[in-house]
Amino acid sequence: MRILILGGDGYLGWPTAMRFSARGHEVAVIDNFLRRRYHLEQASDSLTPIRSLEERVGAWYELYGKRIEAHVGDITDYDFFEPIVRDFHPDAVIHYGEQPSAPWSMRNRRAAVETQQNNVIGTLNLLFALRDHAPDCHLIKLGTMGEYGTPNIDIEEGFIEIEHKGRKDLLPYPKQPGSFYHLSKVHDSHNIMFACRVWGIRATDLNQGVVYGIETEETRLDDRLITRFDYDESFGTALNRFSVQAVIGQALTVYGKGGQTRGYLNIRDTLQCVELTAANPAAAGEYRVFNQFTEQFTVMQLAEVVQRAASELGIEVKIAPIPDPRVEKEEHYYNAVHTKLTELGLKPHLLSEELVESMLTSIGKYRDRVIQSAIIPKIKWNPERPTAAVAGTA
Amino acid sequence: MRILILGGDGYLGWPTAMRFSARGHEVAVIDNFLRRRYHLEQASDSLTPIRSLEERVGAWYELYGKRIEAHVGDITDYDFFEPIVRDFHPDAVIHYGEQPSAPWSMRNRRAAVETQQNNVIGTLNLLFALRDHAPDCHLIKLGTMGEYGTPNIDIEEGFIEIEHKGRKDLLPYPKQPGSFYHLSKVHDSHNIMFACRVWGIRATDLNQGVVYGIETEETRLDDRLITRFDYDESFGTALNRFSVQAVIGQALTVYGKGGQTRGYLNIRDTLQCVELTAANPAAAGEYRVFNQFTEQFTVMQLAEVVQRAASELGIEVKIAPIPDPRVEKEEHYYNAVHTKLTELGLKPHLLSEELVESMLTSIGKYRDRVIQSAIIPKIKWNPERPTAAVAGTA
Repeated sequence: MRILILGGDGYLGWPTAMRFSARGHEVAVIDNFLRRRYHLEQASDSLTPIRSLEERVGAWYELYGKRIEAHVGDITDYDFFEPIVRDFHPDAVIHYGEQPSAPWSMRNRRAAVETQQNNVIGTLNLLFALRDHAPDCHLIKLGTMGEYGTPNIDIEEGFIEIEHKGRKDLLPYPKQPGSFYHLSKVHDSHNIMFACRVWGIRATDLNQGVVYGIETEETRLDDRLITRFDYDESFGTALNRFSVQAVIGQALTVYGKGGQTRGYLNIRDTLQCVELTAANPAAAGEYRVFNQFTEQFTVMQLAEVVQRAASELGIEVKIAPIPDPRVEKEEHYYNAVHTKLTELGLKPHLLSEELVESMLTSIGKYRDRVIQSAIIPKIKWNPERPTAAVAGTA
Repeated sequence: MRILILGGDGYLGWPTAMRFSARGHEVAVIDNFLRRRYHLEQASDSLTPIRSLEERVGAWYELYGKRIEAHVGDITDYDFFEPIVRDFHPDAVIHYGEQPSAPWSMRNRRAAVETQQNNVIGTLNLLFALRDHAPDCHLIKLGTMGEYGTPNIDIEEGFIEIEHKGRKDLLPYPKQPGSFYHLSKVHDSHNIMFACRVWGIRATDLNQGVVYGIETEETRLDDRLITRFDYDESFGTALNRFSVQAVIGQALTVYGKGGQTRGYLNIRDTLQCVELTAANPAAAGEYRVFNQFTEQFTVMQLAEVVQRAASELGIEVKIAPIPDPRVEKEEHYYNAVHTKLTELGLKPHLLSEELVESMLTSIGKYRDRVIQSAIIPKIKWNPERPTAAVAGTA
């Protein structure tokens, strides 16, 4: 297959590119280095010393003789993007090409606007490019479980049958996203669903849980192939961030009561899910939603697992709850269905103390690179009534 | 009250500005003349010879001694927009400032992107401006009944109680919008709901039906105060467009089977609804949705009412169905609740043959201005597989 990966320089994008290339597919990637630039802006960095996209692609070719075609540019720029879709003519597009951080999107007005503009317009451009140049291509879009929020009923996979006043319909599951980032993904979902219905585009929306883990089969092969690992307040997700805190002996900063429950999955399972999805494309005009995670945890449970794993390695760390910078329920009902990927054959790598111990060991190699000031949250969902100075930063 | 009206040069915005000014409120309007510019682009125009915003505001002052503060610029430009909100410090913002046409949004990629960018980013800017400069202001946002699409169950006002697997929750009503324009309104709704929850903003989302009518109490007072009246394929809504077709003796072009059912209301009732809403603000942090229409009709019923009214005036017109340029159900269940505005005191002006006759008479005065080529739809929801030339227009 011809696979085009948007955001192919990212945490998941780069390992995905190598995976499909290793399996013998033709792979092209596009990236605008948005996350690398945002890290520059907030004086943080990947824990792992990732190489430039050019060096990565060069090393992959040198080691395995397989070319990954790399394009540097912005998919919101149609003059750049359209010719790539037209000329590469992908069988599948895997779309990770979005600003992926909820806290970043809540920094200020500019970040909120940039997030929605980047994500929504990029995806719109993709839909038009597919319509006009690759109408049979399978769009595999990374969404997020965060689109659903935390309703008091079970979360279904994309759609829910509603019986109301004696009538029935199967309708899109109601969305209650919790940040301008999560909102942008909800906007994307609605736009994609429409394009499938009206133009016959085939799409799978992978509503992914929170990903953890530092390596995949391919990133382990050579130092130049490692993927990024974020632990800062914006781009670091809970388990990855706790693991770095443990390694440097910093107390694990659980936000609020720690009862926030979410779905989680190992980075290896992200690759597995995306491969399974690509191998089983949606039908023409079909808009499918898969809930892509393997287990549910509360934030406190994650902190406790990291604490125990660290202890096994002789590191004693405290759990130190801090006021939740987000506006969210700190305790709530949560039960999300996730059977569709299992039905396609997903074999989960479940979270265990052993796995966390191995993550802590890998992280230990880079402990000198940790920028402590980047970890503690400064971005608040609901800032104080701003002074003139604060308003000026928007 | 201090009332800021976004899109204050438009079909509804200008009459709304006069109404609040006539009632003794302080009124400011902002407009970027988007619709006037789009008419230039598609070689069409308002049926009524509307004056410039400057002349309108001047005439209003000359006749009634009341100033309406007019700002020309774009709310997506925060450097322009923020100081206006900060300095005017509105008690209510009435937000009509969006690209309002479904067909326009389906013209090509550029129009789709511009529509979502204009509407979504403008509204995001507004939310931040309110948070930072007018946190108690009541946001009155014009949404559309088209956000709901045509589900097979009754449409509720914004939220629906769902019972599922033995649990219950009151959740946002599922949305199935039918164009990139309608999608932009869904995106707005989600963004606004979030801002209310997180920042305590108070908002009423008026999911408006299709508006018809050519005059209000204030537009009748002087020729310089008339409002625009669109009948072209992009900006002309069903009843208004049929009425112009009847006046020029053109067959009424019903799209497809004509069983498409929607909510409708008189332009006079739009003003009434907005006044009632402003007089009864949402609570701090509350996100309310009112379904704003007074009656449901199929497109065929509208065509028939126009046909009968025209006949009373001695004009015999045919109804000539044409292939539906949209992708939509041409026959479907439709029953939408609309009690909240009635509970606030709305007294509807219902549609009648007499009312249509009076519209036809008013339209007759401008029959020489009708641009026939602008009426028949050329924009298709699902264009043929494009040739290189067509793709180039995107």
